[in-house]
Amino acid sequence: MFESAELGHKITKATYDAEVPALREALLAAQFDLSQKGKSAVIILVGGVDGAGKGETVNLLNAWMDPRHIEVHVMGDTPETLQYPHMWRYWRALPPKGKIGMFFGSWYTPPIVQRVLGKSKLVELNQCIHDINQFEKMLTNEGALIIKFWFHLSKEAQRVRLNNLEKDPKTRWRVTELDWQRFKLYNKFRKVSEHTLRMTSTAEAPWIVIEGTDPRYRSLTAGRILLQAMQKRMEQTELASLLVAPPLQVPIDHLDLFDRLDMAQTINDKKFAKELEKYQGKLNLLTRDPLFSQLSVITVFEGADAAGKGGAIRRITGALDARHYRIVPVAAPTEEERAQPYLWRFWRHIPATSGMTIFDRSWYGRVLVERVEKYCSEADWMRAYSEINDFEEQLVNHNTVLVKFWLTISKEEQLRRFQEREKIGFKRFKITEEDWRNREKWDDYEIAVCDMVDRTSTEIAPWTLVEANDKNFARIKVIKTLCQRIETALEKLKRQA
Amino acid sequence: MFESAELGHKITKATYDAEVPALREALLAAQFDLSQKGKSAVIILVGGVDGAGKGETVNLLNAWMDPRHIEVHVMGDTPETLQYPHMWRYWRALPPKGKIGMFFGSWYTPPIVQRVLGKSKLVELNQCIHDINQFEKMLTNEGALIIKFWFHLSKEAQRVRLNNLEKDPKTRWRVTELDWQRFKLYNKFRKVSEHTLRMTSTAEAPWIVIEGTDPRYRSLTAGRILLQAMQKRMEQTELASLLVAPPLQVPIDHLDLFDRLDMAQTINDKKFAKELEKYQGKLNLLTRDPLFSQLSVITVFEGADAAGKGGAIRRITGALDARHYRIVPVAAPTEEERAQPYLWRFWRHIPATSGMTIFDRSWYGRVLVERVEKYCSEADWMRAYSEINDFEEQLVNHNTVLVKFWLTISKEEQLRRFQEREKIGFKRFKITEEDWRNREKWDDYEIAVCDMVDRTSTEIAPWTLVEANDKNFARIKVIKTLCQRIETALEKLKRQA
Repeated sequence: MFESAELGHKITKATYDAEVPALREALLAAQFDLSQKGKSAVIILVGGVDGAGKGETVNLLNAWMDPRHIEVHVMGDTPETLQYPHMWRYWRALPPKGKIGMFFGSWYTPPIVQRVLGKSKLVELNQCIHDINQFEKMLTNEGALIIKFWFHLSKEAQRVRLNNLEKDPKTRWRVTELDWQRFKLYNKFRKVSEHTLRMTSTAEAPWIVIEGTDPRYRSLTAGRILLQAMQKRMEQTELASLLVAPPLQVPIDHLDLFDRLDMAQTINDKKFAKELEKYQGKLNLLTRDPLFSQLSVITVFEGADAAGKGGAIRRITGALDARHYRIVPVAAPTEEERAQPYLWRFWRHIPATSGMTIFDRSWYGRVLVERVEKYCSEADWMRAYSEINDFEEQLVNHNTVLVKFWLTISKEEQLRRFQEREKIGFKRFKITEEDWRNREKWDDYEIAVCDMVDRTSTEIAPWTLVEANDKNFARIKVIKTLCQRIETALEKLKRQA
Repeated sequence: MFESAELGHKITKATYDAEVPALREALLAAQFDLSQKGKSAVIILVGGVDGAGKGETVNLLNAWMDPRHIEVHVMGDTPETLQYPHMWRYWRALPPKGKIGMFFGSWYTPPIVQRVLGKSKLVELNQCIHDINQFEKMLTNEGALIIKFWFHLSKEAQRVRLNNLEKDPKTRWRVTELDWQRFKLYNKFRKVSEHTLRMTSTAEAPWIVIEGTDPRYRSLTAGRILLQAMQKRMEQTELASLLVAPPLQVPIDHLDLFDRLDMAQTINDKKFAKELEKYQGKLNLLTRDPLFSQLSVITVFEGADAAGKGGAIRRITGALDARHYRIVPVAAPTEEERAQPYLWRFWRHIPATSGMTIFDRSWYGRVLVERVEKYCSEADWMRAYSEINDFEEQLVNHNTVLVKFWLTISKEEQLRRFQEREKIGFKRFKITEEDWRNREKWDDYEIAVCDMVDRTSTEIAPWTLVEANDKNFARIKVIKTLCQRIETALEKLKRQA
């Protein structure tokens, strides 16, 4: 893959000086167009051999364009990032639509470096490559333009470069023992990089290898490619994605998960008070377990309007120190959130290690309201199932206890609660026209919920369906389940310790 | 993922009898439509728990439709299939456009079974899952409709079924010790299956889980899903795929791989005769090495018209026993081949272990002539690079020595050879109008060739560029390279032995 980047590419100063002014002007125009249309984020990854001009190119592209619409990210472990699943750092740094984000050291760096240093096996590298392909596929599905630059130097060019730096007293300090140590790993680095680049050069996001020896050549090349890629992207009219898949079906006997729930289950007030005290006490103790600091907890509440999500949440938080949890109520996305891939607004709220976040509605909106109301295409919500499963797997792999509740009430019970809310003054704010409109789509939602449970209830992150016609029963089932899940996770940690 | 398939779904005989006639008629109509339009192959995978009605469903769907346009494949190791890379068996069985192929035991079976039996690690399963996702993505990109049925039984339902079969003297023979042994693995099987289904439920090819207890329910469900999937696919008008990727660029200094070749290299006739004898003898010896029977060899010849592919090939085959090699001249695809994914026509010609195949032009036509002549879309040839790399990796992993030659001549030398061919009677058949037309696109081809080498010359399957202005030089370089590559592979086998 590197043959063409070892030919000794270079261009003259005269050519360079003649070309750059027009290129800069065109880049600025393309950047303005990008920002005006706001339909695509541009993600530029900069990787390659040390000394091949990665940093210089990033600086130059910033100088050529309007730096107010470019963000440059240098990625690495910090005490903060280590508190989150690995991909969190990249999600946090994604540029919104209309902007450019440059990643100097990207999601490719850790897997390549680990493998070069012999700290990971080939199968582990391949697993990372698989995850990266999924991630980039999601990004391009969300409209991003990904440009992956790899700046290359041949081994000989690298050696010459280090020698030249050492010879000159003014630059000698730039060459350290570490540089020569890394030079010794050149062949290994080249081999691992080639493998990684080959496996991640997809049709949507191919690697572009650029020879780094001549600064003029590499800068002009990178600038031109960036320009043409942006121009091409801006010319494209959005096409509805063609989804070949068979459409999801309602069971032909109309028997679904809800039919097997015993909705008549109740708990009387006296027993409720006793049980609540028991489980709130237990939850409080669990969160004060020393090992709890190695966990994080995410609780997801979904359910029909008036199913009692708020009440159930309050019974949980009642047991907790307010400094230790956060409730994230999820409504329509903000303008900032709409300019990002849809999972972005949930990534930004996931708890750090030892934290606890309660989502009052969640990322499942994609396959519920957005599906039913047709806010997104069938292709979008169909791919969301696997994107969500990938997301949740990353959370669970980072020691997150992920507890997902669907609160179920009958259609009659919902009507009763709606009417009650309209009658009682202080509850009137809780009922809107929209609630009544949603109610008309009851059957569509029920189908969407069953598909959701079928496709996202996994061993690592199962759904708990909660029979919620009786509020007491629902609240106890919720807090009890939460206690059990945290307890299991703590026991697992104890066994590992 | 299996919750909804453990609810005890069933439908009455009356409902079934009332629905089936219309369903059969509609299925036949959809099948006729599929065959008439010929734009899509339908691939049905049937997997799941033993006794959940996999075989019965396959039989029934065949009975309901026109079996002349359905092929059923039961997949497993045979002495023949073991001679080829694992996926060969599936490629061979793929249905052409307009037809239906049912796979009873598919590419999912071996990875799941290996993992359940503890013969593979989780990372290895995940590697298989990654490969499967790539394969299915390629199939849907090529227009295939993939329907993946998973027939499920709960553990309890499975136990009841086995007990019932044992109780009845007429069916007792059907339950063997093996069945009960497999029953003991139920939990493991369920866990591995869930993981695999979750990771391979893509938007384009999601799994459809069907409860298998009630034959009427499962048959009617499968039939209806198949019907609606086919109807939906037939309604879709093809959309040009939207390729977001940056366009590939010509180096701005117009320096390419060919500029670094020394085209003046020659070998005089006397030296040629000596060297040819030496390397033909060596090649012959190498192919008679006992370890050669563990290898297979694929040699790919690409190059401009009149670059001397035929002559170079004859110097290789001159050293070989005609029973031991095959030459595959690649021209425009036949009608049968056009009805398949484009790599299909090459998979059918790959050699079994110990075999040797010489491709006179190859799968690289996709990124050469098909790209230059716009026979396929940019998205198609862009994705071809990674599809080809995947394909070649499978070959190499199966102990195939893959040697790829690009024979380079200068534009002037081509003109000289064209004119010579037109003058000399017995060579006149070798020059056509098309050759002259291709020559006009010389520059486009050169760009395509450089991109091809950059994106598909890998450590496991490198390109060898052959300076071919002098035929003697080219022929020696080719046969010498081939000898070296086989020798290296044999040495590797010796070290392993």
